[in-house]
Amino acid sequence: MLSMVERGGDDAREVGRLAHPLGGDAYTIGLTGAPGAGKSTLSTRLVAALRAAGDEVAVLAVDPSSPFTGGAILGDRVRMQEHALDAGVYIRSMATRGHLGGLALATPQAVRVLDAIGFTWVVVETVGVGQVEVEVAGAADTTVVVINPGWGDAVQAAKAGLLEVADVFVINKADRPGVEEASRDLQHMLDLSAEDGGGAWRPPIVPAVASKGEGTDQVLEAICSHRAWLEADGRLEAKRARRAGEELRSILVERLAARVQDAYRGEAFDAAAAAVLAREVDPWTATDALVDALGQ
Amino acid sequence: MLSMVERGGDDAREVGRLAHPLGGDAYTIGLTGAPGAGKSTLSTRLVAALRAAGDEVAVLAVDPSSPFTGGAILGDRVRMQEHALDAGVYIRSMATRGHLGGLALATPQAVRVLDAIGFTWVVVETVGVGQVEVEVAGAADTTVVVINPGWGDAVQAAKAGLLEVADVFVINKADRPGVEEASRDLQHMLDLSAEDGGGAWRPPIVPAVASKGEGTDQVLEAICSHRAWLEADGRLEAKRARRAGEELRSILVERLAARVQDAYRGEAFDAAAAAVLAREVDPWTATDALVDALGQ
Repeated sequence: MLSMVERGGDDAREVGRLAHPLGGDAYTIGLTGAPGAGKSTLSTRLVAALRAAGDEVAVLAVDPSSPFTGGAILGDRVRMQEHALDAGVYIRSMATRGHLGGLALATPQAVRVLDAIGFTWVVVETVGVGQVEVEVAGAADTTVVVINPGWGDAVQAAKAGLLEVADVFVINKADRPGVEEASRDLQHMLDLSAEDGGGAWRPPIVPAVASKGEGTDQVLEAICSHRAWLEADGRLEAKRARRAGEELRSILVERLAARVQDAYRGEAFDAAAAAVLAREVDPWTATDALVDALGQ
Repeated sequence: MLSMVERGGDDAREVGRLAHPLGGDAYTIGLTGAPGAGKSTLSTRLVAALRAAGDEVAVLAVDPSSPFTGGAILGDRVRMQEHALDAGVYIRSMATRGHLGGLALATPQAVRVLDAIGFTWVVVETVGVGQVEVEVAGAADTTVVVINPGWGDAVQAAKAGLLEVADVFVINKADRPGVEEASRDLQHMLDLSAEDGGGAWRPPIVPAVASKGEGTDQVLEAICSHRAWLEADGRLEAKRARRAGEELRSILVERLAARVQDAYRGEAFDAAAAAVLAREVDPWTATDALVDALGQ
């Protein structure tokens, strides 16, 4: 089903159509940050922690730059080894296959499928911080942004638009120098971008050394705190409602664009243009008729 | 009526609707080129030459950069003096009034009105060579591009996209040095951009000194040659049919964009988003219903 989703088109739509009513219970975690920040290592650690709690976990590794298709990239094979014998873990790569914006469309459908199947957690992990990746990771219930210690890393995160989507910051590789500075820079920028008034969520900043398993529990705690905050006072419902509205809007735009294309190409359009030219009808009246015809 | 057209909106549409069936006989000349190239002087000379032949002429001076509204800019008043007592000449400025792209929409309607009134020639003259101006002048039956002698002027014309829209080139101020070079540069670029095979129109290059009235007859001859070429073998009809199709398409896009906006805002959209969220319906089925509702 994920391969159908990845290929797009009518099949993908049909899979989404069938999966939609069966889902709604999975909680999604987005994981983004610059390449090399240690996202996949952190993701593997999180999976282990969630499994220890008895939950079933799916990981979607989204790679817009990869020419490879589903499930075949080397990193996953290596990572799969740790969970290879565990039926409660599913790891899968999503690649673009050349569609511009394809992943932004396909990833929510893939999440929908994994949700319908019954995974309680879906981790969506991106390889970089391009526009599509930020969009994809930012569409999760809780978005974790991974940065590293070092001068300017926090500024880079801000430039990439990560301040807006982050619910939790992880300073990974915290055994290196510069953790304090990175944390201070982030706090400062969060102060500047903080909304007025109380009640807004302020992203916690969690140091971790994912390669050694240090800080994983704290990251998971931060995620669960954010989840608890969202679930109180109907915030999660509101966030998902906004997301549902955005998805509906993007499907609507896609469908109407296709209809406009049809309206341009059809015989009705050519006939209308000829009638306008012959002064039998004015262009506005002719357009009325074309627009009416689109609705049928 | 031109003021209503300039203001845009429903009134403009109604004027266009009423004017459309009455027109079709006017021949339009577009006049474009860099500021200071002498377009308005040439235009005044052309008007005089056309009047001498007994034809009625309207001039629309299109100025996207002018904050002034209809008919009020200084240049026109000066120019009007020459034709002030002549009821067979009408000169009018069109300014943007702040609408982006407003002139590109309003100018064809203004031409439609002047055509309906019975002018046999409509000269559409732009002040510069911005995208809108080239588009506006390029939508005429015959487009005249005015350049000056001097190194690089022909290259500038090419960069501004004038090579594509020009049916006639005028090298104005031809009493200055550099006419040969400008002509050679233009010829060279026309060679490079010439379509393969015969039958295509190759823009003649006419030297002129509009300020002294020199070359005006030759410019008019070049325009009439192009007109004769267009009128043979149904080329004018085909050109106008293409233009009618483009206008219909742009009205259609505008109308559908307005409908999509409606679809986003309505109660039906909110209800659909809520139903998707409650998993009562999948997003594609919900979109089908919204798209159907648009047609009604």
